[in-house]
Order: sequence, then structure tokens, then C-alpha cells
Amino acid sequence: MANPVLVEVTRGGRVESRHHGMIAVLDAHGHVAYAAGDIDAAIFPRSACKAIQALPLVESGAADALGFTDREIALSASSHSGEDEHIALAGSMLAKVGRSVADLECGAHWSGQQNVLIHQARTRKAPDALCNNCSGKHAGFICACCHLGVDPKGYTGYEHPLQREIRVAMADVTGAHIGEDVAGIDGCAIPTYAVPVKALAQGFAKLVTGTGLSEGRAAAGKRILTACMAEPFYVAGTDRACTELMQAAPGRIFAKTGAEGVFCAALPEHGLGIALKCEDGATRAAEAMIAAVLMRYFADDAEVTAALEAMANRTLINWNGTEVGAVKAVLPH
Amino acid sequence: MANPVLVEVTRGGRVESRHHGMIAVLDAHGHVAYAAGDIDAAIFPRSACKAIQALPLVESGAADALGFTDREIALSASSHSGEDEHIALAGSMLAKVGRSVADLECGAHWSGQQNVLIHQARTRKAPDALCNNCSGKHAGFICACCHLGVDPKGYTGYEHPLQREIRVAMADVTGAHIGEDVAGIDGCAIPTYAVPVKALAQGFAKLVTGTGLSEGRAAAGKRILTACMAEPFYVAGTDRACTELMQAAPGRIFAKTGAEGVFCAALPEHGLGIALKCEDGATRAAEAMIAAVLMRYFADDAEVTAALEAMANRTLINWNGTEVGAVKAVLPH
Repeated sequence: MANPVLVEVTRGGRVESRHHGMIAVLDAHGHVAYAAGDIDAAIFPRSACKAIQALPLVESGAADALGFTDREIALSASSHSGEDEHIALAGSMLAKVGRSVADLECGAHWSGQQNVLIHQARTRKAPDALCNNCSGKHAGFICACCHLGVDPKGYTGYEHPLQREIRVAMADVTGAHIGEDVAGIDGCAIPTYAVPVKALAQGFAKLVTGTGLSEGRAAAGKRILTACMAEPFYVAGTDRACTELMQAAPGRIFAKTGAEGVFCAALPEHGLGIALKCEDGATRAAEAMIAAVLMRYFADDAEVTAALEAMANRTLINWNGTEVGAVKAVLPH
Repeated sequence: MANPVLVEVTRGGRVESRHHGMIAVLDAHGHVAYAAGDIDAAIFPRSACKAIQALPLVESGAADALGFTDREIALSASSHSGEDEHIALAGSMLAKVGRSVADLECGAHWSGQQNVLIHQARTRKAPDALCNNCSGKHAGFICACCHLGVDPKGYTGYEHPLQREIRVAMADVTGAHIGEDVAGIDGCAIPTYAVPVKALAQGFAKLVTGTGLSEGRAAAGKRILTACMAEPFYVAGTDRACTELMQAAPGRIFAKTGAEGVFCAALPEHGLGIALKCEDGATRAAEAMIAAVLMRYFADDAEVTAALEAMANRTLINWNGTEVGAVKAVLPH
């Protein structure tokens, strides 16, 4: 099935570029509330499922035992920009279990955000693993291991007990088959599993409602989503889409992006989960798509709609500040 | 007409993302040597047609009068990375006509290349217009104006005499209609005109052979392409695709990228011009596409083929240096 064009990039009144994609909105029982494109296709959720990957940290009691607040839990489910606050918090999480940057297995990279990269370039010789956008998640992984009495060494490996725990949680939440045959390696070295778009959406509906999950997993899931919505800066960072979406409707939108044009979201009031992918992997398109699909659920709130509309139909300006076009979602009804 | 998938991005043995696009290879007479996708579609060539935009500078005699070498001419047709050598040369071009950075109308931006941005952040407070990737082209524009006795002020405007000259050259070279109805504003403030992919390809075949052009324009076109092939660093920069493609086969490949997934190229030995666009605007896909289509013409040269193959089927490694997938062109025969 060919995926429809969901985002158009315009210039001078013409469409200059087009993005195809798929979007699924489901409730926890598997009812499809909205769909576009091939939602049966299996996609790698990449970082968009970090809230699921953080379940062992919270469900095991590690987060409570270590006195983690919403900030630490949000950072455990984040793809942060590497701002000073993110780096410091990831370091302090590791310190609580007597570990350090040396234990992180995510690798190091400069920030992908221009302003943050400029700051990093001026204040450090090179990035370390705490600067990695996944360092909060990895710090959470190490904390979970230490609390469970498992040696964190090799925690990124497919056969490590922590990754096995994550597979069990992932299969339970999404209802999809999770195994080596659907595995790839993510940017930060851990396994990522291809799951159908609609399974991912249903999974986030289950996470936000608790429906179909054990009491402990349901509580942990809600706590993670609530923490992210309470501390959106710690899920992404300054001027980042996830942060802005959750700031636009505090406590009413959970949203998390993933590499290669993925977005997952959850709407507590509606009990709905959302998953989408831009077929070509473009972040700009995934951002327009998630904002546009979220607009469907905030039609009666002008303020939220205005914030979402700015992201769903983003004006492009050139280096002189002249408006030259737009990146606009064109979702079917 | 739906454009075919021309590039696949893989991870863990699966296709994670897909890029659609169109490719045209034509000779100067309009014979189609290779095509994929809708080559009748009009696209904005953006920076991929800078060699055509540089024609007035050379054809007017300005480049000769100012003693420009291959480097200055290459920089006039460049989208450079803002490395120190690029910035210095653009400044020296302006100085030759008694002008300076203050006369540039392209706006300022930090380098889009991470290593260059880090260097810029450490050595300057903010970027100026000489750092703009188009500053060499704009310096060339100003030099052409000064040589022709035209006030360069407002040289980026649609009605400025220089832009009128460029429109005439663009229409002559591509054979396409060029006017306000097909115009948009480019990132650097000048007009950009939507032309069919195949017209763009034929235009570069005319430029590289001189066929169908006046003697003066033919000589100017060849000089510009030759200068770019002789000084590929000044067309883009360190680790950039245009530079690497022209270094891979010195004097045998002219190649120039444009924003939103465009690439134009010319093959002097074959008298062919190439134009392509990744439908979604992705640079990574346009690079794989141009390398793959160029491979068709270097099958008997193992060294060139190896260099092109590395770009047509690029291995993706994660932050730990582990191979996780590839960006690979999948062109139809």
C-alpha cells in the first residue's frame, strides 16, 4: 500500500517537496480512531518508545528507592539536547548508584541543536557520553540494573537481563511480537524492534489508561507519562518539538519523537495513543504530522490549537527573514 | 505520475525509510539517455544551477578584467561550507571592486557543517554574510554589476538588471520558460525558477558541450564548469559530496547540489547533463542518487566506481562506531 502525501513543503506558491507517511490513532482496546497510510507496516519506533523502555526503572522500584522526582524520570525517557541541565542531571542520576560517565555505553556526540552545539563548542574540547541525547535513558538503565543487583556492564546488549526485561514490557504494552527477527541496533547501541504502527499507537493508549496492563505496570506507565508532561524540558530541550507540544497543553498531551521521522503521543483525556512515521525519515514532516493530528482533539481550545497550528503549518523564512514558503501538514479527514 | 523509490535506508536488515525521486540524463539535443520518475515535473533547482547563475560574471568579461582564477570562478558557483579559505576568498573578490561584506544581501548563517560550525563558534561571536554558503555567488554578482557599471544595490531583487540577465541565461541554457509565474525566493534572497527536471539536465549538457549556445556563452559555461572541476574544494568544502564527487574523477565529473534534494551534474566525455531531485528534499538521498547514476558512466574505471559506490551505498554507523544499516540507492536499470 502506497502511503499518502501527508506534508507539503511550499515555495513561491508551488509544492517544492512532499513527504509520505502513516498515522495511527487507537484506543487501548484496539479501536482505530484515525488512520492514514499503511498502519499495519512495522516500523522501528527508535526513541519514540523511550517511555516503554523506562518501565523497568520505575516498575522495579528503583526510581522510588533512589528518590527520583519527575525530572529524573522524564530524563530517563528523553532524547535531550545536551544542555547543561540535562548533562548535570544525567550525571547526578549515575552518582546516586555510585556510577559515572565511564559506565555509559551510548557513545558520545555533539548536540544536534545548533545553539547548544555552539555553547558546547565554546565550553568543552569534545563531547562525552553524558552529552549523548540518550544519556538520561542510559543512566536510568544503569540505575535499574544496580537496584536489581544486576551488573550493568554490557547493558546495551541483546542478551543482557535489562534488555530482556525491556522486550517483555515492549511485547506486553504493544501486543506485538518482539524478538531477534525484528531487531535492529539503535543509534545509542541498544536493540530497537520493528512493530506495526497501529500496535505502537495502541500501546501508548494502554500506557496512558492502564487498560490491559498489570497494576504495577499500569502505575509505572502513568507515572512516566505524567513525569514527562510535568517536566517537558527534560524530555527534549529548548525550542524542541516534544517540549513545545507538552508545554502547549500541560498534562493533556504526552509526545515523544524518534529518529527517522517517528512520533508517538498519548492523550489522557481521550484515552488515545498515537503513532506515526514519515516514510522518508524527515523530522520536519513528523513534527508537522503530529501537530496536525493532535489538532483534531483540541478543536474547542483556541490557545492549544494556535500553538499546534504553528507547528502543523510552519512558515519558512530565509536568511534575511523573508517568508519564502511553508512546511504544512495535509492530512486526510 | 508517482515517483519511484530510488533510495532505501536500512537497519537490522529491514528497510527503515524510503526516498522517492526523479532523475534525468540528457544530451544537448534533448535525447533522454536515462530517466526515472516524472522528469517533466518542474522543480526549483536552487543552488544546483549556480553555474548558470555565474554566466553573467564570466560572459561579461568581469572575471577576466578582475583577474579571477579558477578558485574565484569556482567560488562564484559554490555553496561553500564557510571554512576560513572560503570566507577569505569571497572577501577578496569584493575588495577587488572596492566592495565589502556590507554590500552582500544574502544574509548570515552559521555553517551547516558540524566541524566548521565548531570552529566558527570558537573563533567568532556571530556569523556575518561572508559565512553564508552563497557568499561567493553573491560576491560574483556584485563584481559583475560593478564591471557592467550597474549599481549592485538591490541585486537580489527580481527586477534588478543582474537578475534579468540571469533569467535570459537560464531560459537560453535550459530552453524552459523563466518568469515570475514560476519564481520563488531562494534561501539567499534571489529568485529561483521552477524548470522541468529534463530541461535542467539538457541545460547542463549544453553547458558542458557548448551545443546550442552562442560562442561567448559556450566559452563562459565551459570555463565555469572547468574551474569547478579544477577547484572542487571551493565549490563546497571538506567532506562535502560535490567536492568528493569532483575529486573522485578529476575533470571528468562536474557536480553541484541544491537545497531540497537537488543535484545537477555534467559529464564532459559523454556530453551528458544530469538533473535529479529527491521528492522529499533529503540531501542524503540526493547524494546516493547522484553517485548511483554517475556509476553508470564509469563502469570501466574501478577506482572511480569504488569512490562513487561508497556514496551510493553509504554505511550507517552509530555513536559507538557499530555498523547499523545503510543509505543505498536502488535505481531502476
